[in-house]
Amino acid sequence: MSFQHNKIRQLKMQDNSSIGKLDRKIEKLCNKLNKKKEYYTTSSCAGRIIIIKNQEKKQKGLFILRIHDKIKLSDLRKALKTKEDADFRQEPCILHVACRDIESASKLLEKAIHAGWKRSGMISAGKRFILEMMSTEHLDVPIIRNNKLLVDENYLKMLVKEANLKLERSWNKIKNLEKAI
Amino acid sequence: MSFQHNKIRQLKMQDNSSIGKLDRKIEKLCNKLNKKKEYYTTSSCAGRIIIIKNQEKKQKGLFILRIHDKIKLSDLRKALKTKEDADFRQEPCILHVACRDIESASKLLEKAIHAGWKRSGMISAGKRFILEMMSTEHLDVPIIRNNKLLVDENYLKMLVKEANLKLERSWNKIKNLEKAI
Repeated sequence: MSFQHNKIRQLKMQDNSSIGKLDRKIEKLCNKLNKKKEYYTTSSCAGRIIIIKNQEKKQKGLFILRIHDKIKLSDLRKALKTKEDADFRQEPCILHVACRDIESASKLLEKAIHAGWKRSGMISAGKRFILEMMSTEHLDVPIIRNNKLLVDENYLKMLVKEANLKLERSWNKIKNLEKAI
Repeated sequence: MSFQHNKIRQLKMQDNSSIGKLDRKIEKLCNKLNKKKEYYTTSSCAGRIIIIKNQEKKQKGLFILRIHDKIKLSDLRKALKTKEDADFRQEPCILHVACRDIESASKLLEKAIHAGWKRSGMISAGKRFILEMMSTEHLDVPIIRNNKLLVDENYLKMLVKEANLKLERSWNKIKNLEKAI
């Protein structure tokens, strides 16, 4: 099937993400890419804050909390009432883009890295050219073990502040890339 | 210049890394890749534990501690006497590989992802085909702010245990890839 055919099919597909639609903060960037004939987006996240069970294997029900916006201390406190071993994570913006050919993939990759999406690369270069583009802001903090909260109230306040600040930095990276393409 | 010429030049170059030579734990994988005519490695790290100044901009003197092996609680305690705002980080194995052409790059990329190096992609696909291959084990924990250690002794013990465990998992990923290529 042709790139154009796949693009039309992908853009018609229902959004299967947890929030059911494009995150407002990355929507403009996705739309701008999808208007270009060389690209279409297959998944996106503007950055998020999660409380996740501490286990090696990925499986259903892994998330205790998943927020695609700044977190409030009260929401964090509520989520931490879990009896599971849990980690606090802040993850950066991420975008998957199918590209028509290697030249268009290379061009976008270079722009992404230059715009601060430093964890970007082509993850498929066979039948399809797929870029995974990701920024660098992140936190990964063990927070509950053996049914015990490991940190104090001041630490939680600092986490909220720093995770929200890093989210903002991710949103700025989105703006940077929007301007660059 | 030809791929082969660049390869010879690269492999003759002095190792400029902080430890001055290939990390023993990733040496075998690098050697195995360098023996193949399609590949040569340009940088590698088997995984590390660092204490790093908390600042947005990268610059000289960023590292307070940098260990390419399991960390001891006593070494961590010593490093935390710093007066800087600092974060504790555990980072996974990472490898940069120049590939002769896009086919050989794709082939190695697929093997890497399958061997658990899930954060891998082609970061250059113009004049040279360069893969950045990275595993997923990581921690990123704010630990000193305003000249104050934010966590208690039990937290430090847990960090040492979990960071060392994650390093071991990275070393296993190296073994996996060694076998796969």
